Amino acid sequence: MATITIPEPLPSPVEDSEALRKAVQGWGTDEKAIIRILGRRNATQRSKICEAYQQLYQESLLDRLDSELSGDFRNAVIQWTLDPVQRDAKMAKEALKSKDPKRLLVLVEIACASTPDHLIAVRRAYCSLFKCSLEEDIILHAEPPFRKLLVSLVSAFRFDEAEVDEAVAQKEATALQEAIKRNATDEDHVVWILSTRNKFQLRTAFECYSKIYEISIDEDVKNSISGDLESLLATAIRCIHSPEKHFAQVIRKSIEGLGTDEDSLTRAIVMRAEVDMQRIKEEYQEAYKVKLADDVIGDTSGDYKDILLALIGEDNL
Amino acid sequence: MATITIPEPLPSPVEDSEALRKAVQGWGTDEKAIIRILGRRNATQRSKICEAYQQLYQESLLDRLDSELSGDFRNAVIQWTLDPVQRDAKMAKEALKSKDPKRLLVLVEIACASTPDHLIAVRRAYCSLFKCSLEEDIILHAEPPFRKLLVSLVSAFRFDEAEVDEAVAQKEATALQEAIKRNATDEDHVVWILSTRNKFQLRTAFECYSKIYEISIDEDVKNSISGDLESLLATAIRCIHSPEKHFAQVIRKSIEGLGTDEDSLTRAIVMRAEVDMQRIKEEYQEAYKVKLADDVIGDTSGDYKDILLALIGEDNL
Repeated sequence: MATITIPEPLPSPVEDSEALRKAVQGWGTDEKAIIRILGRRNATQRSKICEAYQQLYQESLLDRLDSELSGDFRNAVIQWTLDPVQRDAKMAKEALKSKDPKRLLVLVEIACASTPDHLIAVRRAYCSLFKCSLEEDIILHAEPPFRKLLVSLVSAFRFDEAEVDEAVAQKEATALQEAIKRNATDEDHVVWILSTRNKFQLRTAFECYSKIYEISIDEDVKNSISGDLESLLATAIRCIHSPEKHFAQVIRKSIEGLGTDEDSLTRAIVMRAEVDMQRIKEEYQEAYKVKLADDVIGDTSGDYKDILLALIGEDNL
Repeated sequence: MATITIPEPLPSPVEDSEALRKAVQGWGTDEKAIIRILGRRNATQRSKICEAYQQLYQESLLDRLDSELSGDFRNAVIQWTLDPVQRDAKMAKEALKSKDPKRLLVLVEIACASTPDHLIAVRRAYCSLFKCSLEEDIILHAEPPFRKLLVSLVSAFRFDEAEVDEAVAQKEATALQEAIKRNATDEDHVVWILSTRNKFQLRTAFECYSKIYEISIDEDVKNSISGDLESLLATAIRCIHSPEKHFAQVIRKSIEGLGTDEDSLTRAIVMRAEVDMQRIKEEYQEAYKVKLADDVIGDTSGDYKDILLALIGEDNL
């Protein structure tokens, strides 16, 4: 479901490194070459290029890109070139350091829209990069209404197959509804439903919710809970229920209205280009009656636009 | 720190399989040969032997041992031959199914006396063996006073290096003491201290506790909290503070008095023979003024005695 286009035959990591070196050396930088190379390699290939570049030139490719590029284009290229696990660990740290509850949503995305193995890898990387566990930092930096749900969501290691018990789903739909109505979504039993059940089981529970209460659980959260806790809970539910819907919404919100929220736009595209971008594009088209690529073209420009288009598989460089 | 003695030169997995096949075939079983082979191979070597045996004879070595052997000897050989991760996942399942709160201690041992990577591997194995997460089964089977601490302890992924903040240790010693006095050890902030901090940090907090309150935290737990919750908490604290002390105590308790608790004796020796049995033996001698091997010899007999002695490095087969 990835959207990047990998050339055939694929140049070797050494050839790619040499081409990248040419692109960043001397006066001026060849941004298009950088996009053509890095924007068309998957995570494993990018990691091999970083290693080969380091060996060949005794410098870090990431550091070099950081010093040669600027603005939103630099952010997109750096985030994309980073190993996805390291990138997510760093994004989690940035979000926690910012003390901005809105930015905590990225932790929910990492916890609820990743595979169990990716989430564990991020927790491991977090420990080795920052000398403490991700959970310790959440407890230190996040405020009480968000803290508990976040700690449990990032600590999850869900069963990753479609084992569904309809009776349990019905019971838990009711438990969720009662907690939402009582504004008691931080009770242990609610947090455990959201953080220990497999995603297929939870999706069934959310569907039971819609059937029994004639309103979707995210709508109900929106009506009953307010502020940043609502958006944290709703994000968790959306990321579990349908990550493609969630990320289509993130992209749409970053673009609509005056001005663009480049950080959110970059994050969503970089995080999902190799995961489910094809489905996000379909979802986007269906929900907003416009092509994702057209919205990106309308709201961005220059090299930044080009790298985003490359990542969603719509560039013509 | 392991106590098993691996022969040099090491026979190949095929040679070991052939010798094991001879030991289990025909009338009568050669138990000594089984001990001499499996009791002197590490986990990786045992796993290769299982593979080679399966390939050579189209049968599972574990199944064959299960049908040829009996009693405590069988249990010890089977538990030892199992991959340690699978063994721990199965022990966790058995403990949860038993509905006996005393048996939940094995979950605490797995959560608090293992490395973060081993614990994650056990959670992964649990999912694939039992089609649900370990946490889901804890919530289903364990009663409320144990449930919350257990879910958090097994979900931990602690930073695994000696980063200690003395001020935090002091503050958290006080928080722990207050919670113990108020019998409120299931409050979120207490559970988080015990389940998210690195072990070096927690050991410092436990030492601060002793200094400030002139009583060790385990003594205080014993005096203030009663029943199975006390023993769960005390086990968690001991496994974090000094696993060798904990397992020396488990072995001693399984032996002292009339009769022997073979299940606990086997579990402690099998779980720790490749981890820290050398230190457990030293701790045992110091605490009880008797050699662990002498206590094992005094309380067990036959092949069961011999396999235990092999695992603690004291056999003369």
